[in-house]
Amino acid sequence: MLTRIDHIGIACRDLDTTVEFYRATYGFEVFHTEVNEEQGVREAMLKINETSDGGASYLQLLEPTREDSAVGKWLAKNGEGVHHIAFGTADVDADAADVREKGVRVLYDEPRRGSMGSRITFLHPKDCHGVLTELVTSAAVESPEH
Amino acid sequence: MLTRIDHIGIACRDLDTTVEFYRATYGFEVFHTEVNEEQGVREAMLKINETSDGGASYLQLLEPTREDSAVGKWLAKNGEGVHHIAFGTADVDADAADVREKGVRVLYDEPRRGSMGSRITFLHPKDCHGVLTELVTSAAVESPEH
Repeated sequence: MLTRIDHIGIACRDLDTTVEFYRATYGFEVFHTEVNEEQGVREAMLKINETSDGGASYLQLLEPTREDSAVGKWLAKNGEGVHHIAFGTADVDADAADVREKGVRVLYDEPRRGSMGSRITFLHPKDCHGVLTELVTSAAVESPEH
Repeated sequence: MLTRIDHIGIACRDLDTTVEFYRATYGFEVFHTEVNEEQGVREAMLKINETSDGGASYLQLLEPTREDSAVGKWLAKNGEGVHHIAFGTADVDADAADVREKGVRVLYDEPRRGSMGSRITFLHPKDCHGVLTELVTSAAVESPEH
């Protein structure tokens, strides 16, 4: 069951400049940064609020590390902007199986590694009224020792 | 001060079909519907979670009521997808003045009426790294009797 807006993924050309925009304009601070080589992105998570399911909602700023990454190709086509939205769940495997059974294309056979040790998958935007949709289970839920 | 992701605004061609997609796929239920003639939209709010500032996060599904509305024109150009993101604040007037002073173009001189009696304004996407950004103060915060 999807219980929160986990994050909004925003593609940008220059991560440092964009982080500084969000800090200077709204006072949002960086909660976490990492490079995800598999996804081909350098990213910053800005925590905006906590959520009623025990999680939190973030802005995820994404700079491609290579032009042929998914975000790099998207950015070349669309320019900077909202790349995807992500819903949080305690069980991404169960929810991915559930939506697949309902006829929505799930882009990964098995969930992959997302931000902060989370497990994620994506749903095809053409099956979701144009919205690239991520399902995410945070590491904290699955691995309480972290 | 912006204290939550208030909603993600999603433009769609047919509101009823899109509401049904979100219900059937994820179990999200309609919390509120309305027509905003000024904005030229028919909309449904799906409440996803409550937030640590006492508010909530929603998906806002938007169907244009006329082709020459902002959402109608956006949809004709971009197709269905994420139209804007919205941050919640207890004082949209103060935050709009603050970001205007920082050089971000604020699209309305004074906040206008948004969903569920809220007061809203928008920031120019070209000043926000491609993201059409809304600031919103909910009616509940300003008018506790509602």
